[in-house]
Amino acid sequence: MAEKSRVVAELSVVPLGVGPSVSKYVKEALKELRSSGVRVEPGAMGTIIEADDMDKLLEAVKRAHEAVFRAGAIRVVTTLRIDDRRDKELSIESKLAAIK
Amino acid sequence: MAEKSRVVAELSVVPLGVGPSVSKYVKEALKELRSSGVRVEPGAMGTIIEADDMDKLLEAVKRAHEAVFRAGAIRVVTTLRIDDRRDKELSIESKLAAIK
Amino acid sequence: MAEKSRVVAELSVVPLGVGPSVSKYVKEALKELRSSGVRVEPGAMGTIIEADDMDKLLEAVKRAHEAVFRAGAIRVVTTLRIDDRRDKELSIESKLAAIK
Amino acid sequence: MAEKSRVVAELSVVPLGVGPSVSKYVKEALKELRSSGVRVEPGAMGTIIEADDMDKLLEAVKRAHEAVFRAGAIRVVTTLRIDDRRDKELSIESKLAAIK
Repeated sequence: MAEKSRVVAELSVVPLGVGPSVSKYVKEALKELRSSGVRVEPGAMGTIIEADDMDKLLEAVKRAHEAVFRAGAIRVVTTLRIDDRRDKELSIESKLAAIK
Repeated sequence: MAEKSRVVAELSVVPLGVGPSVSKYVKEALKELRSSGVRVEPGAMGTIIEADDMDKLLEAVKRAHEAVFRAGAIRVVTTLRIDDRRDKELSIESKLAAIK
Repeated sequence: MAEKSRVVAELSVVPLGVGPSVSKYVKEALKELRSSGVRVEPGAMGTIIEADDMDKLLEAVKRAHEAVFRAGAIRVVTTLRIDDRRDKELSIESKLAAIK
Repeated sequence: MAEKSRVVAELSVVPLGVGPSVSKYVKEALKELRSSGVRVEPGAMGTIIEADDMDKLLEAVKRAHEAVFRAGAIRVVTTLRIDDRRDKELSIESKLAAIK
């Protein structure tokens, strides 16, 4: 059940109750992700995360989500999309190489 | 800031490496969610979850995700969208009432 | 391959640059969807849409997205998840029945 | 209503009823996107698209979605997340620069 496997995911945090510019909040989320022991690649529509397992991924996501509130958001819409494959090792590089 | 708050979320699990029919896998995910102490409302495009806090939500999501692998999936794409508001209590009912 | 097929989708519109309450904007999006010739089921995390084909779906989505700007939003994050199956007819009911 | 504005979006196509490896299908979707007059940046969890307006974006998305069926998928789950801002010009670069 609790098999380990590397997972690749994308996280987007959208703060509400603040202005239309959200980069300040995204930066706080990124700071938390980077100190959470996962690999982090910021992108234009969300942050790609590579984690050793689901526990590490979800812990990092929770910390990033909380950081957006600490930065002043009143409401946060957080979207997480996880790609988890157990027949072979996934990584950001292997996924990018496959669609080259 | 406030660590606890009720959150409403939607979870979608898509198993890969199986046929085009995925209901068997979704049912296993639903079974896990229902035994995870969160409120569960199955829908046509995903399952609405109401949880007391982020920890309970993410624990339930992790269990549902693992259940899809146990049911035979080789790869699972899991999408979670969380709506978390800290200035007033959110619930499935309050959200539906607001858009009536 | 087959150009036409009924599709089931879920649409979420999140207005930015307004307050934390977004129901006014969601209601405008719903009004547009309902006058777009698609079936509409509002939910706690988004609106389920059943459309005769992709063209009708995307036209309805575009109109809903524009309605949120007309209602006053400065920035809109719109999420659309489409389930399109070509080996048998999909509907909101058939999808719900399958996971009962 | 039909104000023009550049939009940045992310598209993910997940084919069902095929094996766990989906890169063949993603490549076909990318080929369509690239010939649709939008800017395309493939990523590990989806493809970033920059388009001149919503019409061009949705036309490109429709073509990419159909390409996955033509490549052999029986069912396709397509996710599109759109960031549309009307108070200033958005681009992939401006979004990345803001979170540096």
